[in-house]
Amino acid sequence: MLENQNVREEPNPMSLSETTRIEAFSDGVFAIAITLLILEIQVPTELPEGTRLWTALLQQGASYISYLAAFATIGIMWINHHRMFNIIRRADSWLLVFNLLLLLGITFIPFPTTLVADYLGTPDASTAMAVYAGNTVVIAIFYNLLWRYAAHNDHLLDPNIDMNAIRAINRGYLFGPLLYSVAFVFAFISVPVSLAIVIGLALFFALPPRNPLTARSLL
Amino acid sequence: MLENQNVREEPNPMSLSETTRIEAFSDGVFAIAITLLILEIQVPTELPEGTRLWTALLQQGASYISYLAAFATIGIMWINHHRMFNIIRRADSWLLVFNLLLLLGITFIPFPTTLVADYLGTPDASTAMAVYAGNTVVIAIFYNLLWRYAAHNDHLLDPNIDMNAIRAINRGYLFGPLLYSVAFVFAFISVPVSLAIVIGLALFFALPPRNPLTARSLL
Amino acid sequence: MLENQNVREEPNPMSLSETTRIEAFSDGVFAIAITLLILEIQVPTELPEGTRLWTALLQQGASYISYLAAFATIGIMWINHHRMFNIIRRADSWLLVFNLLLLLGITFIPFPTTLVADYLGTPDASTAMAVYAGNTVVIAIFYNLLWRYAAHNDHLLDPNIDMNAIRAINRGYLFGPLLYSVAFVFAFISVPVSLAIVIGLALFFALPPRNPLTARSLL
Amino acid sequence: MLENQNVREEPNPMSLSETTRIEAFSDGVFAIAITLLILEIQVPTELPEGTRLWTALLQQGASYISYLAAFATIGIMWINHHRMFNIIRRADSWLLVFNLLLLLGITFIPFPTTLVADYLGTPDASTAMAVYAGNTVVIAIFYNLLWRYAAHNDHLLDPNIDMNAIRAINRGYLFGPLLYSVAFVFAFISVPVSLAIVIGLALFFALPPRNPLTARSLL
Repeated sequence: MLENQNVREEPNPMSLSETTRIEAFSDGVFAIAITLLILEIQVPTELPEGTRLWTALLQQGASYISYLAAFATIGIMWINHHRMFNIIRRADSWLLVFNLLLLLGITFIPFPTTLVADYLGTPDASTAMAVYAGNTVVIAIFYNLLWRYAAHNDHLLDPNIDMNAIRAINRGYLFGPLLYSVAFVFAFISVPVSLAIVIGLALFFALPPRNPLTARSLL
Repeated sequence: MLENQNVREEPNPMSLSETTRIEAFSDGVFAIAITLLILEIQVPTELPEGTRLWTALLQQGASYISYLAAFATIGIMWINHHRMFNIIRRADSWLLVFNLLLLLGITFIPFPTTLVADYLGTPDASTAMAVYAGNTVVIAIFYNLLWRYAAHNDHLLDPNIDMNAIRAINRGYLFGPLLYSVAFVFAFISVPVSLAIVIGLALFFALPPRNPLTARSLL
Repeated sequence: MLENQNVREEPNPMSLSETTRIEAFSDGVFAIAITLLILEIQVPTELPEGTRLWTALLQQGASYISYLAAFATIGIMWINHHRMFNIIRRADSWLLVFNLLLLLGITFIPFPTTLVADYLGTPDASTAMAVYAGNTVVIAIFYNLLWRYAAHNDHLLDPNIDMNAIRAINRGYLFGPLLYSVAFVFAFISVPVSLAIVIGLALFFALPPRNPLTARSLL
Repeated sequence: MLENQNVREEPNPMSLSETTRIEAFSDGVFAIAITLLILEIQVPTELPEGTRLWTALLQQGASYISYLAAFATIGIMWINHHRMFNIIRRADSWLLVFNLLLLLGITFIPFPTTLVADYLGTPDASTAMAVYAGNTVVIAIFYNLLWRYAAHNDHLLDPNIDMNAIRAINRGYLFGPLLYSVAFVFAFISVPVSLAIVIGLALFFALPPRNPLTARSLL
């Protein structure tokens, strides 16, 4: 482990503080990305003659839907990041790099969110939705990279974790990229269905699973 | 508890770190939402011929009032979140979901704040104020959901808390949605009164209560 | 102390976590406010015919100066907040309120910063500078309120602190509002002098003092 | 050490909390700066007649490249800050000041990033790239100042660190300003090469080094 190369006396506290700061930095990025989403919802200005504010507010329904979808997406991804780092107890340089790749996908979310808000209901809605769903596929892949790297190097994991549980999680995580790919494909067939899949996946993954072995297994 | 399913050996430190990270993420969201509010206050540009800057600054009084109202609202909500998590010592997946719902309401605040700043003094002020007060009602309801879920599952609470205190808090929290609903109704009768109620509630709830049993009981 | 009313068994760890979360929230606010400042510097767009980018960049010198002044102001205020909470070990509801008032002043800084950047060199520069310096006076007063409240209720302080040191800090903190008031008055006489005072105060307060007794005493 | 002047009884816990809060504040700044970058990528509005969204998205390739470059730059700088503070165990006022200078460079990054995004492919691309690379040179110099100050005052470092390792790090850090200066010079010769150097340096520095003695030695 890189950070311990010159400091071998107290590996444990060093490692604990190691993931603590990764989590703190990641929490910051998740918190900012989820809070910046509100900047995407435009405040109506210069209402046309005879239009009341409440009409204008109702007309931008696409903004609220894409806001909710993005909030749910980032929220569930934070929950899963959180669960993953409950098991990961040590860090090395590659883990930092894979975590940064994951955060790259997270910080990108406000961009496709605004795309969907602006182009929902236009002929370009498919493109906007494809960028949104495509980004979630990429994030799901980065989640797998991060987890598989940590699980492969099991000295990075909490030693109390059962190997069967890890294998179950390995299998479970595979569904993430797959399911989000379905949303991506539907972007070109039906934008509302694609959007519904993205929101549905977030709600589904947020709730506690029935089978303990798959507890942390789905993205 | 979901996070402990595969790691039963040391439930306590796990649980502690559990709420620690929820609090860190929530603190981040509160801190960003309260700091983003300033972006709502417009810097006057292209002053009309003969207008001085100080005149232009004084004319946007609605911006400062809505800024103060929103700052007070988020500030008091952070204080109450803080108090609630002084009692909550463990977390499970549903608690994470209810906390995210609460944060959804918090991150939304900059939007109605700008609405009020832009439409105060216009015929659409009622609509803007209703959106603002309506959002606080929703937040107050989410606070109740979060607290009641934690209190109902009292294994999530600090074991040293007296059950009578919890029941008193249960009763007290009911006032939050009720009082903010009054502000919501007044949005359609008198916008200044509605705004005064929102600010007044924030100041009232921020200060230490006289009766210890209701110490944490009002939103 | 409000937070301990129902949980008297372990006052110390409770109190420690109390200020820890205040510091975390405050750190978030300081970090966001200092990072948002960059949004104030405009990227030149639509360069006039024959103008090169480097000319346009040089012409917005006022933006860089006000950026540096605001960065230095927030930076030194974070350092002082940090020092103050090295001594404050417990919290109550009033401390939370005074801390929020202080943060109100901090989150406001990006607004006068943009004002100064936009109006430096115009006849309205005095107004812009007066708003900037006026806000720092208000912040310095809130620092005094926060510190005096904590010092007056010395059970909130680290018990190892010497009372003579506290009295010296009390005297020292008085200089903050006074010195920033000088910058405020100079806004109406000479904007560059006022700006130089604000930057100078930040640099002066950042560096370690020679006399240990006044170590934490100046804003 | 300034913070300990009046509190000599328990130097160790005080010092630990000292760097903890510096790291928390710095993490916040890094997290916000890296997340704000997305605001630089414009959502295409008012597409010209006959232009589809995907064409418009592809046309702003410069935005994505500068986004990736800036994300990689801030990411690697966070990793290095992290590594440095694994060795630094105590803080004094000068360390706080040098750390603030470093953060000044970090928070500035979104500005040259937008410059590069807007001017890549125009005759002013060299100016934009020079500002970007110039800022990284400044950051690299501030990193050296911060590290050398901490290493010179070795009571600030973890006492378990070997002096030979520190000397190796001293030599290694010198390469940072040098290598980024090469990128700066290439801004005036070939913008793509300069951009490639910046991205390449970030990737190179992110990965674990082969020689443990230079583990933390390159910026």
